Amino acid sequence: MSAPAPTTINIGLCGFGTVGQGVWKHLSANRAELESRLGVKLNLARAAVRDLGKARAVKVPASKLTADPLAIANDPAIHVVCELMGGTTLARQVTLAALRRGKIVVSANKALICEYGAEIFATAREHGGHFFFEASVAGGIPIIKALREGLVANRFPRIYGILNGTCNYILTQMEDRDAPYASVLADAKRLGYAEADEALDVDGWDTAHKASVLAWLAHGVWVKTDQMIVEGISRITPADFKNASTLGFGIKLLAVITRDFTKNELCVRVHPTLLPEGNVIANVSGVFNAISVTGDVVGTTLYSGRGAGQDATASAVISDIADAVALIKHGKGAHFIGEGVPAPRQEKRLAPPEHIRSRYYVRLTVKDQPGVLARVASVMAKHHVSIASVIQNPAETPGAASLVLTTHQSNEKAMRTTLKQLGALASVLDEPVLLRIGDFND
Amino acid sequence: MSAPAPTTINIGLCGFGTVGQGVWKHLSANRAELESRLGVKLNLARAAVRDLGKARAVKVPASKLTADPLAIANDPAIHVVCELMGGTTLARQVTLAALRRGKIVVSANKALICEYGAEIFATAREHGGHFFFEASVAGGIPIIKALREGLVANRFPRIYGILNGTCNYILTQMEDRDAPYASVLADAKRLGYAEADEALDVDGWDTAHKASVLAWLAHGVWVKTDQMIVEGISRITPADFKNASTLGFGIKLLAVITRDFTKNELCVRVHPTLLPEGNVIANVSGVFNAISVTGDVVGTTLYSGRGAGQDATASAVISDIADAVALIKHGKGAHFIGEGVPAPRQEKRLAPPEHIRSRYYVRLTVKDQPGVLARVASVMAKHHVSIASVIQNPAETPGAASLVLTTHQSNEKAMRTTLKQLGALASVLDEPVLLRIGDFND
Repeated sequence: MSAPAPTTINIGLCGFGTVGQGVWKHLSANRAELESRLGVKLNLARAAVRDLGKARAVKVPASKLTADPLAIANDPAIHVVCELMGGTTLARQVTLAALRRGKIVVSANKALICEYGAEIFATAREHGGHFFFEASVAGGIPIIKALREGLVANRFPRIYGILNGTCNYILTQMEDRDAPYASVLADAKRLGYAEADEALDVDGWDTAHKASVLAWLAHGVWVKTDQMIVEGISRITPADFKNASTLGFGIKLLAVITRDFTKNELCVRVHPTLLPEGNVIANVSGVFNAISVTGDVVGTTLYSGRGAGQDATASAVISDIADAVALIKHGKGAHFIGEGVPAPRQEKRLAPPEHIRSRYYVRLTVKDQPGVLARVASVMAKHHVSIASVIQNPAETPGAASLVLTTHQSNEKAMRTTLKQLGALASVLDEPVLLRIGDFND
Repeated sequence: MSAPAPTTINIGLCGFGTVGQGVWKHLSANRAELESRLGVKLNLARAAVRDLGKARAVKVPASKLTADPLAIANDPAIHVVCELMGGTTLARQVTLAALRRGKIVVSANKALICEYGAEIFATAREHGGHFFFEASVAGGIPIIKALREGLVANRFPRIYGILNGTCNYILTQMEDRDAPYASVLADAKRLGYAEADEALDVDGWDTAHKASVLAWLAHGVWVKTDQMIVEGISRITPADFKNASTLGFGIKLLAVITRDFTKNELCVRVHPTLLPEGNVIANVSGVFNAISVTGDVVGTTLYSGRGAGQDATASAVISDIADAVALIKHGKGAHFIGEGVPAPRQEKRLAPPEHIRSRYYVRLTVKDQPGVLARVASVMAKHHVSIASVIQNPAETPGAASLVLTTHQSNEKAMRTTLKQLGALASVLDEPVLLRIGDFND
């Protein structure tokens, strides 16, 4: 016989930075309405902070604060542990400790899920714990629930979207203000839209972590970042926006998850992408996120909203707390885990580079002298990369020209070799810049 | 002690038209994957059809067919009843019969929910049945789940969107082809995008039914169509699109649900609306639906996709069947009903017309003679309706002119009186056309 469901749910927050304070603030403000909807009392029981002495915008009684998140994870009175610390060392310990005690863990930690997802879900399954992670991807947009439950009837040939608000802010500013990357990045840091160490965002790793979570939800396979193409935005210039616009495209940093159901191959990649100007996602600007999900039954559906920030992330964390409450009320014995995620038994392989096909945009800085285009074209021809268009402009360096080539359909293997050989030409003055052309019309 | 959860879920389909056949087809095609995700066998046990002898694209063994949907609703072996017949008489009987037996009913029937929602949910609550209705609004877009679960942390000051694909198809064609309403409607009927009796769609009633469902989810109040402003698209002309474009707007038939949390007033309305050209929803074309949801925590999120059709609707029905399976596996005793929907105890009143504020677009067909504009302007001034812009064009009728006025902020009460008096002027030759200007930037 199982114990009766508790009438008060005790919630512990591990991590009390921007997101943790947002959860505390909004849960406190909307508590009456939420309790009425959920039919239980919600008790913000404890919060773990890094520095007990620090002043915070959101006030919490000192008796509820601890400096030890593991004390919350192991506290038998706590039903729901929200891991909002970030990082993958202590966060992993806290998550696993809580799951081993059969608790429900609510997490916004995409890096942790990407790296340790398999271990986390195995631990949850073994000990009757549960792991919810709506806040880990696309902030307040309920994309996890959409993929896992709302679109459960579907298989997913293609999912793509903007998953990092910092990069989208920078790209939007570069395009709108015709400003170079470095100065926009500096502004973004000053405004708090970019971290002091920007690498996780601008080099595509944050987007890759989120892509990994979505790929697992849609296809039941854990893809690590070292199994993906991951390229960032730091080499894009205002001239690239102008060239893209001339060709009818905008530029967005996208996660692209495609599955070929005939070959049964999966491909997860993150790279700046030329998107047709009419595409809705090409027009999503600033810190917003947007995701296009194509299902074999439903067709293409689109989701957009704020992808980060205190409030949007708190909205997602609180929705997971609400799901946790429903689960606790039902008795956690029978559990949801794995539901909505395809069984991993089915063999899927990652697509090899020669199967990853696209059109490409290549920008070369070359010596401005006769014969250069012929040499470039002959390297491309040797690898069967067919040129679709050429734009030549003066480069910033005197005596140099910027040569932009777009290709017809080619593949990653051919392009890698081509780029390597182009980079080795004496007349090519800088490492080639490669952007993918995303021929996505919805 | 409760009975163990069944390992095979028996599904009965009441109604085997476009949607019913779509559910059968996709459940059959993706059965293995779904069963693996859900951990039960899914048995398409019975289907009720209107005509047992009719040939159908989707073949079903004769032994599984019946002409009596109530036989399925009352069959003790059936766990999940999908009511896909439409209409509100037999559909209501079938729904209530199944709920009285504690079954789970999955419904795509927005007209039924709008009219009998309160009775349906009371019956479900009383008898331990459940009612799921993801397919009732916006086809395959999981908007019900988003409002009810994904955004549960939020209160909703504004929800608006395109909820009827037929109207959006007609408006898009009128705009793109510069074609009059009647000829586009005739084409739409020929192509199967509009019903033989188009009134339910083009007069806004279908959108109003869906608005009622969304308003209930967001605010816990049943608003009937006779408590809403409901206006259709049949009086819009290609000239209106040109005028709107001159003013920087597109025209969409929208459901708009707003709540003023200070006055605690709710307003649900359906009308053709001028939307700023940069607004994403202004650019959603053809049979697609799109919904903008503004939450007090999450900010504005947007959802779009196919709003109707066999496949998109089947995707939503199957997601409800999956939720039903999860519920049955957990034991239905503790139930979800009401969760995610605000308690109705809180008093809300419908906003009176004088509190429903907007800018307006008024088109008058007037005698082309001096003094007319002065008379029109003086009527508007009398009711404190302030004119923002005037466009005058020749009308189709010789000797007549088309006079388009936009107003500054006014309200429904003032505009109703104004329109009545304008219509009574001898120099106004036809009933005035009124469109609302939706100053929605997201």
